[in-house]
Amino acid sequence: MRSLLLVSAALLVAAAPPAKLKAPSEIVAEAPASAWRDINPDNLVVMDLRNGARVVIQLAPEFAPVHVANIRALAKGNWWSGAAIYRVQDNYVVQWGNNESTRPLPPGVIAKPPAEYHRSLKGLSVRPLGYADDYAPSAGFAGGWPIGYDPKTGTANLTHCYGYVGVGRDLSPDTGTGGELYAVIGHAPRHLDRNIAVVGRVIEGIDRLSSLPRGTEALGFYKDESMQVPISAVRLASEIPATERPAYQFMDTGSATFGAYVKARANRKDDFFIRPAGGVDLCNAAVPVRKKSA
Amino acid sequence: MRSLLLVSAALLVAAAPPAKLKAPSEIVAEAPASAWRDINPDNLVVMDLRNGARVVIQLAPEFAPVHVANIRALAKGNWWSGAAIYRVQDNYVVQWGNNESTRPLPPGVIAKPPAEYHRSLKGLSVRPLGYADDYAPSAGFAGGWPIGYDPKTGTANLTHCYGYVGVGRDLSPDTGTGGELYAVIGHAPRHLDRNIAVVGRVIEGIDRLSSLPRGTEALGFYKDESMQVPISAVRLASEIPATERPAYQFMDTGSATFGAYVKARANRKDDFFIRPAGGVDLCNAAVPVRKKSA
Repeated sequence: MRSLLLVSAALLVAAAPPAKLKAPSEIVAEAPASAWRDINPDNLVVMDLRNGARVVIQLAPEFAPVHVANIRALAKGNWWSGAAIYRVQDNYVVQWGNNESTRPLPPGVIAKPPAEYHRSLKGLSVRPLGYADDYAPSAGFAGGWPIGYDPKTGTANLTHCYGYVGVGRDLSPDTGTGGELYAVIGHAPRHLDRNIAVVGRVIEGIDRLSSLPRGTEALGFYKDESMQVPISAVRLASEIPATERPAYQFMDTGSATFGAYVKARANRKDDFFIRPAGGVDLCNAAVPVRKKSA
Repeated sequence: MRSLLLVSAALLVAAAPPAKLKAPSEIVAEAPASAWRDINPDNLVVMDLRNGARVVIQLAPEFAPVHVANIRALAKGNWWSGAAIYRVQDNYVVQWGNNESTRPLPPGVIAKPPAEYHRSLKGLSVRPLGYADDYAPSAGFAGGWPIGYDPKTGTANLTHCYGYVGVGRDLSPDTGTGGELYAVIGHAPRHLDRNIAVVGRVIEGIDRLSSLPRGTEALGFYKDESMQVPISAVRLASEIPATERPAYQFMDTGSATFGAYVKARANRKDDFFIRPAGGVDLCNAAVPVRKKSA
């Protein structure tokens, strides 16, 4: 039989003795309805590419309200019409958008938003990860998001995990409207935390971004425009007729189910695993998201 | 001007005031010849794909000697002729090879190698990372490789960082000859450490693996064989005529240059960065490798 590296526990559950710890995927599959939260359609950006791929981004207004308001206004203003993915750098980021300095911004877009690189801990209900973090004094989850935080300064920031979306900017920290965005497609570049505004995460279609050919120029820019991937439309889900509108839920990071999920991620004991790690890093405990059935 | 997210310091060095810390890329570019070590051509696996891509893997006989000997014997025995990449799972692994249970193994291949999931710390000259690790009591580098280690038990293991290569196996830990291999193409799945034999790392062409279309079946297997990516040849560099043989060097992880590189990775202060992290995780301090000029 062909070696089945990393057989998912879902395939094995029938044979697993009851004493085994549940696999993370089982915990998610069995989560009660109360562990899930609907995502507001105003916080969902639906980006359709001309190659037929759909990429859906969940926005995080709790962490970058001005940038998120800009992104909503850019979508409503049809600003990304004619835009493209123009940069794909291996083990790093995919980047797309329009040139902010030459294309007029739609009404309501703030040209120079503040540097929303962290926020106050106040108002956040934090679940500590329970394991060390190399990029912040503490790591954990709040409101469905992974965060680094510092109880001493009372600040918290969204983190650059796989699939997370940030705002391209120039060297000055107050630039970057949200008109040029990137998504992480490699090992979490956490050194970017608190240096760039993180505005959300890709919750569908990251595989269609991560599998694009890498750009051959410095920083992964495509050498010529013919290699770019055109975007056909970027809309808020709330702009899409309700009957066609995609809907998603994320797991409440304050729920007991999420606590069990993190524990299972840190202590894999399903059949394949011989030695549980006894720990997990923040970006290896991705907050579960699912499509909401109609 | 188009937002240049994460402008490489190399582009900015002319304008940078001398007080700035050097960027990691500058430290690598300026490294003295003494900081580099040649890679033995017996430790280089050259895999050419039928689509024209070349993938080069550096083997780690210090950590998995029996599996590495197997891989050498499989290459010399032309065992991968007709093999293909048959699995691509997003944010996880690319996997390739032949069916070990149906295709006869060449002479010299041990059908059931021992579980080389860790080794003794003895004989390793360890540079501690200096920052916390969630997957081992300590993390660091030895002989050019990232490792987790435990001074109490006196053991060390190669880690599942981006681009690292492991041996596909079934549920029993003594299976997996090396005939089916995988490479990490996402956030480091460190929970696999000490559960699978890690045999080396991709040092050229990982972008040609990470950009393959994801398989749509469970675990990223391709649905039908027509989607597989055929392998045209897998050879040791030592089997290739010296005039055509590719040659590489890795940075000596015991060198002062490597120490400075890790420090710079943990404290980015080149122009783009506002707040240095003050830490780095093991897989974000990738050991530099370069092509050796003829």
